[in-house]
Amino acid sequence: MPTPRPLKLALAGATGAVGRAVLETLEERDLPVETLRLFASPRSAGSQLDFRGDELRVDALADGAFAGLDAAIFATPATVSREWATRAWAAGCVAVDLSAAFRGDPDVPLVVPELNGDAALAFEKKGIVAAPGAPAAALALALAPLHTAAGLERVSAVVLEPASGAGHAGVEQLEREAADLMNGREPEGPGAVPHRLAFNLVPQVGAFEPSGSTDAEAGLAAELRRLLGAPGLQVSTTAVRVPVFYGTVAVVSLAFARHLAPDAARAALRGAAGVKVLDAPGESVYPMPMLAVIDESAMVGRIRATGPRQLELVVSADNLRRGAAANAVGIAGRIAASR
Amino acid sequence: MPTPRPLKLALAGATGAVGRAVLETLEERDLPVETLRLFASPRSAGSQLDFRGDELRVDALADGAFAGLDAAIFATPATVSREWATRAWAAGCVAVDLSAAFRGDPDVPLVVPELNGDAALAFEKKGIVAAPGAPAAALALALAPLHTAAGLERVSAVVLEPASGAGHAGVEQLEREAADLMNGREPEGPGAVPHRLAFNLVPQVGAFEPSGSTDAEAGLAAELRRLLGAPGLQVSTTAVRVPVFYGTVAVVSLAFARHLAPDAARAALRGAAGVKVLDAPGESVYPMPMLAVIDESAMVGRIRATGPRQLELVVSADNLRRGAAANAVGIAGRIAASR
Repeated sequence: MPTPRPLKLALAGATGAVGRAVLETLEERDLPVETLRLFASPRSAGSQLDFRGDELRVDALADGAFAGLDAAIFATPATVSREWATRAWAAGCVAVDLSAAFRGDPDVPLVVPELNGDAALAFEKKGIVAAPGAPAAALALALAPLHTAAGLERVSAVVLEPASGAGHAGVEQLEREAADLMNGREPEGPGAVPHRLAFNLVPQVGAFEPSGSTDAEAGLAAELRRLLGAPGLQVSTTAVRVPVFYGTVAVVSLAFARHLAPDAARAALRGAAGVKVLDAPGESVYPMPMLAVIDESAMVGRIRATGPRQLELVVSADNLRRGAAANAVGIAGRIAASR
Repeated sequence: MPTPRPLKLALAGATGAVGRAVLETLEERDLPVETLRLFASPRSAGSQLDFRGDELRVDALADGAFAGLDAAIFATPATVSREWATRAWAAGCVAVDLSAAFRGDPDVPLVVPELNGDAALAFEKKGIVAAPGAPAAALALALAPLHTAAGLERVSAVVLEPASGAGHAGVEQLEREAADLMNGREPEGPGAVPHRLAFNLVPQVGAFEPSGSTDAEAGLAAELRRLLGAPGLQVSTTAVRVPVFYGTVAVVSLAFARHLAPDAARAALRGAAGVKVLDAPGESVYPMPMLAVIDESAMVGRIRATGPRQLELVVSADNLRRGAAANAVGIAGRIAASR
């Protein structure tokens, strides 16, 4: 293979929980980075972040931010991505967006590198490539090999989302509440999560739509259909915020067109990129958030038959590293190498 | 109605998490208790427990323990129930068992008072009445009205079980681990739960069977079929231990024989005994463990259609009070009144 061309990148939202995970992933991967410009909200601008031993300044987004760059990773809220992704492309820099802003746009490819990395090169319509939400990325990695093997017909997924899915503010809320409760103090009112999260479960992730589902739940179903190339797939999903800092879990009930034995499912998953099988229940080995953290794989286990042509399983993944950063860096690397 | 006859009761396992919840429920309910004998393991024998202002001595189980009593509530491990329930009946005292020991026995009625209270009187074959596990009790209360309305065909349930489902030892493990982690210490090895539970999710409740499901998961499916009188009901279930002290949650995907709109489902549930509808998602009102605690209802919300003849919903209930104690006290009251 030819030596990859040195990358010229930007990272917007560099000081957020996802932004920092992108920086860590860029540091760890053996990618030649020629330029890396960091951006954040005006509130965080002026701070410095370490990257491969250099202190990099964080700037506020401004005109000219993206000039001369190959790709810009947006680890920003959807409102910021909507405004600045098009501006990046106007400057010739492809936007790799981690927010929900463009995930449903048919002119924007939705990409998980291990599944459909080539689709990242079809950015010409809008100059934007979207990455899915963390649960959709983890689920798509785990379900794609099974779909190929036996034809998925129905997915019922319960997604257990960690505090960090709501960013630093979610992590801080859980920390503060847990400390208060452990010290016999009543926690202050909630913040990023709409109710107390410590030692509680909150069945709301995102904002409610008229259907009664949240935007996150509806988005997960739509993203899963896109990533699996299965527009008719029946998906029902409920997301629950759980008192865990990092690592997402999905408990999934699947119906297939054809028979698929648990052993055949395990074999299909063992050969899949971005997937690890952790499935020795007799030895208490199965996916858990504490095992998924700082790993770039979707971990799959508790695979078992629950009826004819039906499987039940558990998936866990680091929501920041696997669910966001690995996708963003993989997509950006693909794009930069092609330019 | 005639004045209820004063009850002569025993409570075995009085010092455990479930036993204490039974005592609290007996105190709060306006039941005339003439005799209450408390039993526990030899380790706990000799201690005193308060009941309606009296200090009651806790004894070790021994021959003659049940003489002259109407009913004995067993809040004990299955091994203890298996040994002592028959002995109680040999002394003419009906055993009300909260363990899994007899839940699958066709000669032992399985009862949730609000659903099939009369079945508690059919104890003559073995002198034993069983109560279901907490998740099955909560789910049966929530699903029975919907089954009557539209004919349930398929239930896919993800059950999120609190630390107290593993007794005092589970509560202590979570407390200790949370305190250690909040103070930057590595927690000791796990105890009642086979992995670290604080800020983690453990997809194992009970012991694994050859099918790949745990006994708790298989039991839940079987108990639900019995309580709903639906032997052919398709049930798939996964149980996950979550870092919550009290309160169980089930996230449920349902398929029906006939159409059932969410509004009709809510109306059916509002009229059901032992059920509260908490379903105003726009105002962030939905079932959560922190709301279910110290309440005798199964709380139901997030009711929405996810396909033709399909509903998705969330149930939460106090695993000790609603899931165990209310059933035990209701059954014992029924039996004692009949004798």
